[in-house]
This record gives sequence, C-alpha cells and structure tokens, in this order.
Amino acid sequence: MKSNSVKRGRNFLHTPGPTNIPDRILNAMHRPAIDFSGPDFLELAIEIFRDIKPIFRTEGRVFIYTSSGHGAWEAALANVLSPGDKVLVPETGQFSASWTDMARTLSIEADYLTNDWRHGIDPDEVEQKLRDDKQHAIKAVLTVQTDTGTSITSDIPAVRRAIDAANHPALLMVDTIASLGTIDFRMDDWGVDVAVGASQKGLMLPPGLGFTATSEKALRAAEACTMPRNYWDWRNRQDDAHYRWFCGTAPEHLIFGLREAINMVMEEGFDRIFARHARLAGAVRKAVGVWAEAGAIDFNAAVEAERSNSVTTIRVADGYDGDAVRAACRDNFQIALGGGLGQLQGRAFRIGHMGDLNEPMILGCLAGVEAALQVCGIPHGRGGAQSAIDHLAATAASA
Amino acid sequence: MKSNSVKRGRNFLHTPGPTNIPDRILNAMHRPAIDFSGPDFLELAIEIFRDIKPIFRTEGRVFIYTSSGHGAWEAALANVLSPGDKVLVPETGQFSASWTDMARTLSIEADYLTNDWRHGIDPDEVEQKLRDDKQHAIKAVLTVQTDTGTSITSDIPAVRRAIDAANHPALLMVDTIASLGTIDFRMDDWGVDVAVGASQKGLMLPPGLGFTATSEKALRAAEACTMPRNYWDWRNRQDDAHYRWFCGTAPEHLIFGLREAINMVMEEGFDRIFARHARLAGAVRKAVGVWAEAGAIDFNAAVEAERSNSVTTIRVADGYDGDAVRAACRDNFQIALGGGLGQLQGRAFRIGHMGDLNEPMILGCLAGVEAALQVCGIPHGRGGAQSAIDHLAATAASA
Amino acid sequence: MKSNSVKRGRNFLHTPGPTNIPDRILNAMHRPAIDFSGPDFLELAIEIFRDIKPIFRTEGRVFIYTSSGHGAWEAALANVLSPGDKVLVPETGQFSASWTDMARTLSIEADYLTNDWRHGIDPDEVEQKLRDDKQHAIKAVLTVQTDTGTSITSDIPAVRRAIDAANHPALLMVDTIASLGTIDFRMDDWGVDVAVGASQKGLMLPPGLGFTATSEKALRAAEACTMPRNYWDWRNRQDDAHYRWFCGTAPEHLIFGLREAINMVMEEGFDRIFARHARLAGAVRKAVGVWAEAGAIDFNAAVEAERSNSVTTIRVADGYDGDAVRAACRDNFQIALGGGLGQLQGRAFRIGHMGDLNEPMILGCLAGVEAALQVCGIPHGRGGAQSAIDHLAATAASA
Amino acid sequence: MKSNSVKRGRNFLHTPGPTNIPDRILNAMHRPAIDFSGPDFLELAIEIFRDIKPIFRTEGRVFIYTSSGHGAWEAALANVLSPGDKVLVPETGQFSASWTDMARTLSIEADYLTNDWRHGIDPDEVEQKLRDDKQHAIKAVLTVQTDTGTSITSDIPAVRRAIDAANHPALLMVDTIASLGTIDFRMDDWGVDVAVGASQKGLMLPPGLGFTATSEKALRAAEACTMPRNYWDWRNRQDDAHYRWFCGTAPEHLIFGLREAINMVMEEGFDRIFARHARLAGAVRKAVGVWAEAGAIDFNAAVEAERSNSVTTIRVADGYDGDAVRAACRDNFQIALGGGLGQLQGRAFRIGHMGDLNEPMILGCLAGVEAALQVCGIPHGRGGAQSAIDHLAATAASA
Repeated sequence: MKSNSVKRGRNFLHTPGPTNIPDRILNAMHRPAIDFSGPDFLELAIEIFRDIKPIFRTEGRVFIYTSSGHGAWEAALANVLSPGDKVLVPETGQFSASWTDMARTLSIEADYLTNDWRHGIDPDEVEQKLRDDKQHAIKAVLTVQTDTGTSITSDIPAVRRAIDAANHPALLMVDTIASLGTIDFRMDDWGVDVAVGASQKGLMLPPGLGFTATSEKALRAAEACTMPRNYWDWRNRQDDAHYRWFCGTAPEHLIFGLREAINMVMEEGFDRIFARHARLAGAVRKAVGVWAEAGAIDFNAAVEAERSNSVTTIRVADGYDGDAVRAACRDNFQIALGGGLGQLQGRAFRIGHMGDLNEPMILGCLAGVEAALQVCGIPHGRGGAQSAIDHLAATAASA
Repeated sequence: MKSNSVKRGRNFLHTPGPTNIPDRILNAMHRPAIDFSGPDFLELAIEIFRDIKPIFRTEGRVFIYTSSGHGAWEAALANVLSPGDKVLVPETGQFSASWTDMARTLSIEADYLTNDWRHGIDPDEVEQKLRDDKQHAIKAVLTVQTDTGTSITSDIPAVRRAIDAANHPALLMVDTIASLGTIDFRMDDWGVDVAVGASQKGLMLPPGLGFTATSEKALRAAEACTMPRNYWDWRNRQDDAHYRWFCGTAPEHLIFGLREAINMVMEEGFDRIFARHARLAGAVRKAVGVWAEAGAIDFNAAVEAERSNSVTTIRVADGYDGDAVRAACRDNFQIALGGGLGQLQGRAFRIGHMGDLNEPMILGCLAGVEAALQVCGIPHGRGGAQSAIDHLAATAASA
Repeated sequence: MKSNSVKRGRNFLHTPGPTNIPDRILNAMHRPAIDFSGPDFLELAIEIFRDIKPIFRTEGRVFIYTSSGHGAWEAALANVLSPGDKVLVPETGQFSASWTDMARTLSIEADYLTNDWRHGIDPDEVEQKLRDDKQHAIKAVLTVQTDTGTSITSDIPAVRRAIDAANHPALLMVDTIASLGTIDFRMDDWGVDVAVGASQKGLMLPPGLGFTATSEKALRAAEACTMPRNYWDWRNRQDDAHYRWFCGTAPEHLIFGLREAINMVMEEGFDRIFARHARLAGAVRKAVGVWAEAGAIDFNAAVEAERSNSVTTIRVADGYDGDAVRAACRDNFQIALGGGLGQLQGRAFRIGHMGDLNEPMILGCLAGVEAALQVCGIPHGRGGAQSAIDHLAATAASA
Repeated sequence: MKSNSVKRGRNFLHTPGPTNIPDRILNAMHRPAIDFSGPDFLELAIEIFRDIKPIFRTEGRVFIYTSSGHGAWEAALANVLSPGDKVLVPETGQFSASWTDMARTLSIEADYLTNDWRHGIDPDEVEQKLRDDKQHAIKAVLTVQTDTGTSITSDIPAVRRAIDAANHPALLMVDTIASLGTIDFRMDDWGVDVAVGASQKGLMLPPGLGFTATSEKALRAAEACTMPRNYWDWRNRQDDAHYRWFCGTAPEHLIFGLREAINMVMEEGFDRIFARHARLAGAVRKAVGVWAEAGAIDFNAAVEAERSNSVTTIRVADGYDGDAVRAACRDNFQIALGGGLGQLQGRAFRIGHMGDLNEPMILGCLAGVEAALQVCGIPHGRGGAQSAIDHLAATAASA
C-alpha cells in the first residue's frame, strides 16, 4: 500500500464516534482561552447548563464533565449507587457489558440478563425480574438505548412501562451516548432517572465532555449515596460558586464548541435531525440488504425495527474477516469504519452514520464499502450503493 | 426545498475551481499577519519564488500576482504584447474566447481559429496559419491546455512542434489554470514561453493568486513591450528590493498557503498526483459512459484522448436542461457542479474532479449526480456510479 | 541572538500594515471554498458591494479587486486617465511619490508639488496651481490622506475647497489606504471622486483586496478613458453577470473575511473606532513626546494636528540608526515596527497603531520600544511609556 | 462601561490558568476527528505516552485523563490511598486546602499542617511529623510545588530529604499543575512518587487533560489500594488494548494539541523555558516592588526565594479592594487577572505569567495594571512598569 501512503482528500469518518465535526464547531473552538472565573464565561456557562436540558428533553439538572463517555457512566453510577447495591442490566451488546464491568469494579452487584447480541431489551424479562425482586434489592435498571457494538436500539419507554408494571422503585438509567441527537429521547416524558451522554457522537463535538441528566428522584438518591467520590459528585457541582460547576478549571474550548453544537441542533430542530438520520440510515440499510443477498454478510440486528439510525453492525459469515473489510476501506478508500467488538471481533464491521452527515457523504461511504467488498473478495449482492441511490432519489422530495 | 434549508454535512464541491482546500492549507493560513518587509517573510518569499518553479517544470522566473487567473492572463498579455500586435488563438472553448476578448480590449489584434468546442487544438491548422504569416505579424500563439468550459485538453507539445515546423518566432503562451498540478505540463521541455496559472484549482488554494511563468525569450519581449502597465510589469517585480516583488503589500496569507500547497505537491510527487487524477477521472468517465447509453446525455469532448482529467463537461440533449441537474444536485444533494458556459449554457453541466480529491469523494459525487438525474427525470443508463465503483475496485491495487 | 531563535508568545505587529487580524476574521476565512457562481456566493457578493459603501461614506459604486493597494492605485488611474493626461500631485511622502511614479509609467504626466515630508498638503498651493491651469490640462488631483511613510495626515476637505475655489474640473482622488477605518473620511460629503483603499490596515484583513470607490463624475470619466485595461476596468465590473464583478474567480476567502470585518466596523461604529484610534495614538504621542526630550529622536510630522492616528514616524538624529531600533525591537522584544522609507531610510522608524488594537497592546509596544532604545543606547527622555500609562488611565472613564 | 462594551484587540490573559494558547496549538487542534482505534491514532498515542515522560523528567508511567486538574488530583489519591488511610499535607494555600478537602470526601484522613499562606513548606515540620508517626500510619505526603492561590513555590527536594531523614515510607505526592513546564521539576531525581499535572498552564493547552506521573512504588501501592474506582484506575489504563488507555473514547483533539505542545517544549528546551519564565517573572517582581513602596500593596509571598515564576499574588492593604483592581483591568484595559482565593478573597489580586509569554506581553500587562491602580486610586510607587522595562532592557543580551 506504499503508493497510497500520501493520502489526499478528506477521510470519510464512519466510525460510530467520534463523528464528523462541522467547521462551525471547529471554528468556535479556535479561539483564545478566557478567564474561566470571569463574567463572560459565567454567562456562557449559565446558558449552557440551561440549553443542554432540551437536548435531553428534561427540566432536570444536567451535569457536564470533562471526561469521556465512560467517565459519565461512572458519574451516573457513583452518585446513586453505594457499594454493595444491586443493579439489573439487560444485555444489548458490548456497551451493556462494559458498563456492567464498571459497576462491578465499583463494588456494585449486577444482575446481567444475557442476550444473543442480535435483539434489543426484552421488557417482559425486565418486568419479571423486578417482580421477583420482592425486597427491592435492585436499585437501578441500566439500559443502553443504542448499543454501538451491536447497533441495536431498544425501546426505552417499554422498559419504563415494565418497571411501572412491576411497581418497582428502581431508578431507570439510560446510556444515550450513541443515540442522543440522532433519534428521539425524552427524559422527562419517559420517566428516565439518569441519562448518560457524551460529546462526540450526535452532538458532533470532539471527545471530551460527558453528561449526566438527572431526575429529582436521582438527585435525592445522590444525597444518600455513600460511594466515595468527589470529581463525579453531583452535590459539589450544584454549588453556588460557579467555579465548582466543572470541578476545577472549566473545559472552555469544548464548552465553546458545545454552544455552537446546541445552536446547530436548535436551528435544524429535532424533527428534521431525526428524519435526516432515518433517511440516511435507510440508505445504509438498502445497501446492506442488497449486499446480504449473497449470503456472506448480514445485518447483526435481527429485528428490523431495532436497527439503529446511527450505526449499522454488519456480520460477515464464517470464513470471512470483518477486519479485512475495515482495512480495505481504510487503506484503499480512506473510509474509516468501526470494527466488530467483543464477541463480534473479526466477525463484523460497523458503519457509523450519525451526526453531521448528508447524502453524498453516505453515498461515498457505501460506494467505497462496496468497492472494498470487491477488493476483499467477499461475496455480496451487486448494486448495494445503487439501491441507496434509488432510495435517496425517491425520498429527495420529502427531505 | 424549505425543509432542506438547514444544510448539514460537508458540501461536495465539484465546480472546476475553486476546489477543495485541504485542512493543512486552511490551517497554514490561519495565523497572524507578519511584517512583510522583515526577514521572516523575506526568507519565505525567496523560498516560494524558487519552489514554484518546479510546479511549472521551469528554470525560468515565475511572477506571483495578487489577482485572479484573469489577472494573470492580463499580465501575460501586457508584458509581451504591445497595442496593435497580433496573436493567433486556436479556439478550445469559453476560455480561449474570453482570453481573446481580453486581448482585444488591450488593443491586441487576434486571429481566432474557430472550432466546434468538442475538439482540441488542431496543430496542423496552427502550423498552416503560421506558415501563411510570412511577415511574422503574429507575435504569439495563445493556447489553453485544458479549457474548463469544454473540458478539452489539447496537446501543447504538438502546438510547439507546429510552430517549429513553420519556423515561426511567435511566442507560445499557455493557459494552465485548469490543468496545472493535475496533468503533465513541462514548460522548459515543451518550449513554452509564457505559462499562466492560478491558485484555486490543482494547487488547492483559495482564489487570489495568479502566476506567470516565463522563458528568457518572453522576458526579452517584455523589455521591448510598450503596453502601459505597472502592476503587471515583470520588470518592477524583478527588482532587488523585495517589497516590489508583489507590487505593494505581499499577499501573505495566500503565500503561507502556497508554501503548504507546494509542500503537499512535493510530498505526493507529480507521478502520483497525475495517476490519482487519471484514475479518479477514469471513474467519472466510466459513470458518464454508462449514463450516456440512454442517449440523453453525452460527453462534450468528442475525442476520448482529449477528455480532461480535471473536469468533465456533460452535454444534455435538446429538451433537457443542464442547469436543472446542477440545481437538483445543489438543492437535494449538496453537490456543487459547474454549469454550461457560453454556447453550452443550459445545455451542459460540468463535474470538477481536480485537486484534493479521493475515491469516496468522487463516488459520493457520482452517486449523487445519478440520484439527481433520477430526480430530474433525465433518461440515463442505470449503473453509472456502479461502474465507477467497479473501476476503482479494479484499480485499487495500483493506487 | 541565538538563544532567542525560538520565539514564544505573540509577535507585536506594529508595522503600519498589515495589521493585527482579529480571530473572528481568521475564523470567518477558515472554511471550505464554495461555488462562486452559485446562489450563496451571489447573495454574499450583493451584500458586500452594498455594505462596503458606508465604509467610504458613499452612495457611489465601490469596486473590489483581488490585488494589493498598489493594484487599486492602478485601477484608479487607469479608469479615469488616458495616456498623455496630466495630474497634479501634492507631495506628502513616500506614497505620493510612488503613486506618481506609477502614473508616469502609465504615460500620465504628473506635476509633483514637492514638500519637505514633514508637512501635509498645502491647499493654497493646490489652488494656485489649478488657477494657473487655465486650459484645464490637469485632469485629476492625487492626494494621500495619510501618507504611511511620513505619518502625515492631510486635510482632504481643504483640498476640495481649493479645487472649488479655483473653479477647476479636476477629479479629486484620495488614497485612503492607511486612513480608512481609522479616522473620518466622507467620500460624498467631501466631494471625492475616486477613493482608493485596501484590506490590510483599518479593515483588519489579510492583504489581498484593493478598493476603488467612485463618484458619478469618475464613472463618466471612465467611459471616455482610453487607457488599455481589462482587469481594472470598471465597465466590465458593472456587468449584470455577477461572475464579472471580480473579473474571474472571486477571492472568496477574503470576501468571507470582509463580511466579518464590515460587521465588526458596524458593531463598534465609526465614532467609537475613531475615538479609540485617537486615544491610542495619543498614548503613542505622549511616549514619543517624552522620548524626544533628549534631542535624539523626534516626531517626523512637524505639525501636531497633522500627526496621524494610524502610524507615527519617529526620526532619529544624525549619528543614530533608525533601523537599529527596529532590529532591537524585532530581535529582542518581538515587536515589529516599520522602517524609514525613501529619504527616511535608516533615519526613522515607524510605529503602526491602527486596526484591531487596545490599551495593553499599545502599552506593550511602547514599553518594548523604550526598552529597545535603552538597548540601542539612543538618548531619550525617560518615562515615555509611563506617560502613555498616565494618559490611558486619565482617559479610561471616557473610553 | 457602556462605551467599552465592544472590545477590540486581544484580551491579555493573565489568569494563572488557563494561559495563552499558541496559534500552533490551536491549529493542531483544528482538524477532523479520526478513528481513535485505528493505526494513526494508535501511533500518536504511543508517541504521546512516551514523550510526556520527559516533561515530568521521569522514566515512570504517565497516565493521561480526560479531566480537569482536579480530576488528576482524584486519580492520584484514588489509586494509592484506601478509605481510612492517612495523609500529611503541609499547607501552602488554597490548593493544598482543596486537595485536602477532596481527600477527606474520599474517606481519607488528613493531617493538615497549617501555615500563614505567606510561606512555603517547612521541611523540618514535615520531618518531625513523620518521625512522630512511628506506626507509619501516614501513607503519603501531599505537596503543592507552586500554590496558585498564594503564588508560593516550595522546595520539593527538601521535602524528599525530610521524608528520607525520618526514614518514613510515605509516598511523596506533588501537585505540579501550576509549575510544570515553568520551573524545574525532576520526578525521578527528586524521588517523587506521584506527580499531578494539567494541560492548561505551562503546557499552553486548553483545559481538559489531567496527568498523573508515577513511580514504581506508586504503581505497587495501586495494586493494593481498595478505593472503589474505575475511570481513574491506573490498572485498566495499562491494558494492552489501547482503547483502554484513555478509558473510553480518547480526547483526540487535546492529544493533537498535546503533540504540538510537547514539540514546542522540546524545541525551546527546559533551560530556555525556565530562564524565560524567570526573566519575565523578574519583570513582574520589579514592578510589584516599586508599587509596594507606597505601602498599600505588597507581595503575598514573604520570602523572596519562594516567589513563583508562574504567578504573583499581590495583597492590597485593608481598606482597598483587590477585586476592584481586577475589575478595572478587565473593564478598562482588557487584562484578565486572577482574584484572591479563599482567605485572600478581595484582599489580593494575582498576575499569571506562565506559558506562551514574552516581553511585550508582560510589559503590556504590567503597564495596564499600573494604569488600573491609578484608576482605582490605590496608592502605589510610581514607575513599576518602568522598572520592568529597565529589567528587560538590562537582561536582553542574555535572553
């Protein structure tokens, strides 16, 4: 691949996070640092803590961390769960697994409802587990709205209904990292207690900010929680003294970027954002559907309604190598895909299609992937990209 | 198209100039101004005047103007042609026509060899004209290597041979604006006297710099030239005093960008640059070839060997509207194409494919254009983008 | 100076152009190129041609060139003066001299009213010259509002009154390059026929744009003018076809920057801009006044009222070297000053103080210059910077 | 201050963090996101984890957190201290106090050696405390090399000698947040076990990265530590799987910036960096020394040798308001100072002078502060800035 070693043109970033950062956001971050305890930053911070709420569709308080999404996971756990507490986690893939691992290292007991990684959360199973928990030992149900590893989107309102049907007081916690700003999420309407988010996916920012949105019930739980914590502690971050809102020096540049990101979300509006994601994801699914006809590749998500609008995990049959597709895309076509995670390592590749994306971007990606399938010699139905073209042409009027 | 009014994702810029500007170049320009008469800028300017020469494959002096390409056209004319002088211009399209118009407003007489806009320069015709010019009234032959309007590339060495065969002293002047840095151009080897270039095409810079590269014969002609001129005057710009090299304040930021652009060209090397352009242009031609099968669209360039590697002009049959394709691409698919120019207005559209471009970019463009053809209801062979995919997959190993 | 070879911190740019470019403008320019013949750029161009007018306080047409300020000089001359025409030029310094040289190379005859470079235009002398010109051979009076070389600002309305008093039809042409956006200039109220400007001084942009603002009388003169010209020709640039407004590919990035620059000027407003420049220039003059007490340095401008608010030329007595101060500032203190030009070479240095400037910037500059005077061993009154501090403290309430 | 509401020119950022970010670093961060699990980022990460070591002068492992400096504090504590463990903390100011508070919220017992906030650590007192701790209940000594609140720099090697003299096994932990990259710090030579750093001070980056550098002894302590932790856990971050090195998505853009920051540090070299900081801090101290002559203001740090080279805390006498100076600087002169923290609130202001700083920057700051002292009517010796000028002129040759 020597002759390709000098790359020209833009890399097509189709990892499921980080995603493409709009120039507007990069420019908003291209500025000097400012006094983070001065009036200008104070005003900005007040705005941001107010304007991040509608992103989660909540009236509740949202905490902003200088952290990865994993940091926000820990913040969510450490504020409402004490060592020895128990949680229920319906498996959805790599990220339900990792969050569970994290909980366990924090001395939290996890009841993990295993699954085949091809289906979303079964609300009935959750309900049954909670009904069985007569003592209410389970303090929280941990869910992942879209598991980036399996590209499965679960039905969060159905989980809420399951908890309610069981009449169980467990907190409903939702990881929205891979879904926020790409599909509907309504914290308050859905009765979510803690939502976890991050900057580098639907919000189109560089990695570096984690979010926890909280219900009042969650904030009350935090008061009683005995987990040793300081950086993550919601209590400190509600202080009147604004320099404590970020626990130390505020991550100014990411906040400058977040200001612009929220502006962009508000300009476009959720309806259009979700429709755009659905339409572009539709193009991906058209292409994958055609490629799948030859039997060597397939959707990981078995149920059509559970296929994510932000990422698509594509399985390759035994005898083929998912990582080879990824490498061919990367080395020959400057397209960055995600690899298979966990039990899917080498057995899948993933196309991210969330954030700052439009028609020719996804078409370029799909056409390049189709070329890579040729290069790799993986049997596939011919005309996947063509099918995506047809889909986008047919739906152009409604866009 | 109301719901589309908020655009997301990157615009696919496929006008034949300006072209995509790499982040490296934008970053190189994102810096404070500096003292343009101080030692740092002096050092940079010396470097630039040296390193721009290999871009034209010349040992001759290259002059850099704060101007558009049209400005460089005027510089080329005003330095070697005096009012009343005569030039020979073989037509190649809109740009041979405009350059001729400019010459005439400068009181230069032009003998314009008309052509059907579908073929390149006929060297025999040039030779005959020069043979007929016994008095050597013709002072220069003005040629356009790649006419951006018709997307026809002419054979410059053949023109040189024609001049030599006629044993005529006319200067050979070449507009390389749309070809420089995309296909071979060898000023010295080919015996070119004046080459005209600009920043915003193969050099990947914003518009704002014009170039004239010169042979010694051209510089001698400039000494005798009586055209009133100052800004364009090569003589001032050869002064020892470096503040005169740019006639006034130097265009620092474009020079910062040019430094990076030349670095990028040198890193990749002409062989790889030209091969990349040829391969991506091949993908475009594959797609257009398929689309043309339905009879409603066609290559403008009649001769395959004359089809440009930087831009492709695509004619639409009577009864169809080239501008509609352009509008559909722009409004539905965020792809910017060029329109038909001059006699091709409304009868063609143009796909630019030069500069900082790679496989998924051109595939995204072609797939989007194919979708736009569907939206516009213009009959076209199905599978143009597919054919481009096949081409790029088949040639991936060599890239 | 080896140990200084790695510079840290910001360079203090106090050349009288280019000036400090605000981050807002650099960011506005940090974006992809766009289709310059598409609707977005068209809309921007229409806005810009409208909104540049108030900058010159004119209702007349303003032409925008991809050029240096020297290019705009040539545009001004080439459109209203024919070869053989005569102009009257009252000397003000290096720039009246250079503009005259340019006119002469364009076969324009110049009557140059010499001056000692320490005083502004004498309107009486202009009036007398025009009265003497019974045949109205003089077609234009060329003036420089602020001559950057001598830092002398002349009284343009007084020149207008002189022309009127002589009842002479000559056009009044004004070079505002170093004054526009720093002190009052009122094209229409003052009866100016052609004003010349550039991007890199009061407008805070990178070099690369030249402007000519025109009265109706000037436009009429252009219709009759026989100077061979195309790029500069106002007539082409008034075409309905917007791609001709910039004669070739539009300088998009500088136009993006100009949009932001005009926004910034309008936000601050002329009153505040001029007051800010006057106050900061006052600080410079306080410092120079103190330094001058030791007899070795002095203001170049003899008359206090003619001292420019954008640049200050400081003479050094015989036996001292102005360039040494400049070098000491550059090499020891990262301050870029202007050098003496023309007859002032080596005998002066210049402090630019226009554009995007505030109190600590000018204080840092003045303090650094005072340190450089110490380093160079040039006798100077002690406490120049202190005097500037006092001035800015005393005037802080009014700022 | 209405008329000042439109600010022009650069803000002079003299808070003691964040500090001025060089354009090189902002540009390095102005780029698209990339696949954080792909080979390019892997290569970069490997480099960074290697090249960050010399910054701390250690061969030990350095962990990089997406966090504020407070996050790195917590990481340092949570990895080596178990709930119930005891630490010894010699008071140095606001930051020794806050770190102690944090330790206590993590159920760590702290023996806090109070101090008057005007003196550095007393090694003899530390030694005595450790000698008294026969049971070795004290697991670590927590120190702050430069306390940003008091601007006092303590002698870390002396603390090491004290521990050794007491023959005590306690870990030596050092907060270098405000000193790293501004004065000497030698982790390995000085026998430091855990060093804490952050991005936004001497490293000239935006806030967002925290560092913990570790000795082998510290890593061993981490193995035995029972503090519940995951995000901070050094053990996870030593995993072979590179996606665990940052616990989740890597903070790519800050890492891009860190790459450039380390390059800049290596180019300049520690000797020159420290000399530059010392010289500029010397200028600040000259100015403060003169201002102090009138009795109303004074250095906070009582001992000259303990005055920091990165920040200077300046006390104002009773009856005067430190915050008024800060407000006057901000509102009149666009200079951002730090305020008095904790017990110094309202009774001091702070001038940051670390990072990407040079002579005219510090002179502009000092001159502006002197003007602000005039505006506020705070008695001060006249000529502070003048004294700084003299100092910088006198030392120019050695710079």
